[in-house]
Amino acid sequence: MALWATIMAGGSGTRFWPRSRKSMPKQLLALAGEATLLEQTVARVLPLVERERFVVVTNASQQQGVGELLPWLKPENLLVEPVGRNTAPCLVLAATRIQAADPDAVIVALPADHVILDDAAFRRCLKAAIAAADGERLITFGIVPRYAETGYGYVELAEPLQQSESHTVYRVARFREKPDRATAQAFVAAGNFLWNSGIFVWRADAFLTAARTHLPEIVEALAPYATVTAGRLVSGLMFRYADLPDISVDVGILERTTAVACVKGEFGWSDVGSWSALAEVLQSDADGNVSRGELVMLASSGNVVDAPDKLVALLGIHDCVVVDTPDALLVCAKDRAQEVRQILEVLRARGRTDLL
Amino acid sequence: MALWATIMAGGSGTRFWPRSRKSMPKQLLALAGEATLLEQTVARVLPLVERERFVVVTNASQQQGVGELLPWLKPENLLVEPVGRNTAPCLVLAATRIQAADPDAVIVALPADHVILDDAAFRRCLKAAIAAADGERLITFGIVPRYAETGYGYVELAEPLQQSESHTVYRVARFREKPDRATAQAFVAAGNFLWNSGIFVWRADAFLTAARTHLPEIVEALAPYATVTAGRLVSGLMFRYADLPDISVDVGILERTTAVACVKGEFGWSDVGSWSALAEVLQSDADGNVSRGELVMLASSGNVVDAPDKLVALLGIHDCVVVDTPDALLVCAKDRAQEVRQILEVLRARGRTDLL
Repeated sequence: MALWATIMAGGSGTRFWPRSRKSMPKQLLALAGEATLLEQTVARVLPLVERERFVVVTNASQQQGVGELLPWLKPENLLVEPVGRNTAPCLVLAATRIQAADPDAVIVALPADHVILDDAAFRRCLKAAIAAADGERLITFGIVPRYAETGYGYVELAEPLQQSESHTVYRVARFREKPDRATAQAFVAAGNFLWNSGIFVWRADAFLTAARTHLPEIVEALAPYATVTAGRLVSGLMFRYADLPDISVDVGILERTTAVACVKGEFGWSDVGSWSALAEVLQSDADGNVSRGELVMLASSGNVVDAPDKLVALLGIHDCVVVDTPDALLVCAKDRAQEVRQILEVLRARGRTDLL
Repeated sequence: MALWATIMAGGSGTRFWPRSRKSMPKQLLALAGEATLLEQTVARVLPLVERERFVVVTNASQQQGVGELLPWLKPENLLVEPVGRNTAPCLVLAATRIQAADPDAVIVALPADHVILDDAAFRRCLKAAIAAADGERLITFGIVPRYAETGYGYVELAEPLQQSESHTVYRVARFREKPDRATAQAFVAAGNFLWNSGIFVWRADAFLTAARTHLPEIVEALAPYATVTAGRLVSGLMFRYADLPDISVDVGILERTTAVACVKGEFGWSDVGSWSALAEVLQSDADGNVSRGELVMLASSGNVVDAPDKLVALLGIHDCVVVDTPDALLVCAKDRAQEVRQILEVLRARGRTDLL
């Protein structure tokens, strides 16, 4: 049994505009540290996964960027989706090819654009998940909630299934979609609800068996591409992929199977879903400001500033996001950072696609 | 009797940082329209003043910029102060040279960095002032206050001295320095207090007579430079100017003489003392935003944005100033725009003189 990694690097970058653009999405940016989020994601599991066992799923506009950051990636392990179809087709494609190469493979599947502050703790959790995935179980990583977030899905835990030295694996009672605030508060108070991180561990064969049961059309459509070369994969997917259901692995498979289990993790996870979320994972100054670039801050607090190319002076500014790029500047109230995509809609309507 | 203009163009640019810099102060910027404030000031009186009767007082760091904007200016009429000594030495120097050239001259003295929205109304007011200045009277332009500004000095009016078709000239009871808020409110309520605009009209001989009485050391120190060439003026002032008292014409002369009178003006005057003051003199959109450059504004109001070189997107931002330049970006609460100079102090302390 060997561990493989599937890195999901197909996300678009609308919420980190103007730093992120269509061809430069969040995972290709160094938002939290010197390395890009993609590189950090790879480095996180590299101590446990051989380089030839990394499979990265991305799209055409990011293919070059991914290839430059991971030049050692085997060409046939860089899977290029012609169109985004959420996580189910992406993970079935990766598992199909991995199982063909290694019938005994165990896969850890990770989004390329999350932040994890404690990589060692993550790897300890990963080892517990691998132990629990020995069989048919599909393991999801649940995060102990830090507050009543309404933007995440939750995993409701049932009884413990397995206990390692450091981690407990639970049966999943059910998945809960993004709750309203009162429900989220009840989840956090109840104690047996975890944030659904979107990080998974499973045996390739177990996952494909579950997928064949619940999403047979996806498994059948992608089966012919189990062993074809990178070039033939691209041309083959071009004709099939757009017709696949646009569905997440959670909704399409995990919520429909009893084989799913959850390992409880605490390793400083964030999906950094917006500029304001960066403030949670980066070191801030005494006034709660998080910044990249040279700053002068007077009577200002709680700001997120990303302006590596020039000096930024803030005077009497609180809880704002300031992002400077050569052709666009964003100034945004922190509590509206989720709405940045509305700006992109305006730009699209104006025909300023050069700024998207 | 011929009309001469003295343009005071020696101000530093701290309050419009980062657009204004040491060598590019406010009067050399096109803050309100296509032309610079200096050019607008010249254009305002050009219908009444021959070009060879313009005298501009500036400093070494702005000399080149002024020369480029006013290439027709006679070299001996561009007076370069080696160091700033407020308005009294500046206006005595100008009057000394003007009187030597034209003993019967009447001078209108204007700061180069004010905004006047209605030039025609200003010129009508100027004509009334010229009529009232025929003799010993020193005329100051008083502005009907629009609100209880605490940043301006006020002129307290006494009885009317002279009435033209459109304007009344009053005897000045006294000058009042920048008041506190309650006092300013009382001034506005009283009705006989005007903002002291810093624009003046006087005969050269009358002004120099008053100056000789109240600031004899300045008149004597500058008398030798009445007729020297531009080159000899520069070298001469280099040795004398720094020793002159640093004093305004208001404090040094006008407040000490009974010959002072005030013409009441309403011509859309502003000294645009800060970025926030621009909002009063520029056309704003329906949400009270004033801007230069392409903008996307969502849920934002009352902002001043100066960013000609890139798109600026504001989301949930109210009453802020945003100024983008190639090497520095300012984001500032509008009600703290007066404190921008504190940023320059920080930069100076850091040794970032390149940004001043």
